[in-house]
Amino acid sequence: MVRVVVVYDISDDAKRYRLASRLKALGLSRIQRSAFAGRLDSSRLRDLYRVCERHATDARDVIHVFTLCGYDWSRRRAFGAYEEVAERVVLV
Amino acid sequence: MVRVVVVYDISDDAKRYRLASRLKALGLSRIQRSAFAGRLDSSRLRDLYRVCERHATDARDVIHVFTLCGYDWSRRRAFGAYEEVAERVVLV
Repeated sequence: MVRVVVVYDISDDAKRYRLASRLKALGLSRIQRSAFAGRLDSSRLRDLYRVCERHATDARDVIHVFTLCGYDWSRRRAFGAYEEVAERVVLV
Repeated sequence: MVRVVVVYDISDDAKRYRLASRLKALGLSRIQRSAFAGRLDSSRLRDLYRVCERHATDARDVIHVFTLCGYDWSRRRAFGAYEEVAERVVLV
């Protein structure tokens, strides 16, 4: 299992909603408006990459996926209205 | 030096622009509409945390900072219109 952080810019609303719903279906939690995080095994990680490939199709679309080791995950910092969200992510 | 990824949701336009300009001033590069990345030494990292604290002030503001080891950074994946941006980040 690895921790992943997914950050996306998708211009088309319908496609952006579809991507968010796919990320949820993979077991990830929304940590910001356009960012999800959670734990995936290697098979789900491959699914995630496929989902990203299929959704970043327009010239201005960008999706970044960061896979974090436990140490890097533990060093993350959140500022602002994050408490509830951070709590949820820790439980993933 | 550590690699950092900063992802933000700031509702107020002026504050969001100000934050982006502070992140640039710290030497970070924009990798997405609301995400910056780059290398910082420990003193600059403390400056970054202070900047984030000062900008995530409204109820809906959220800023996440992830610090990545070299291995995690090398595993990042980008999809879509990322080439130019990814190139720039590698050079940071």
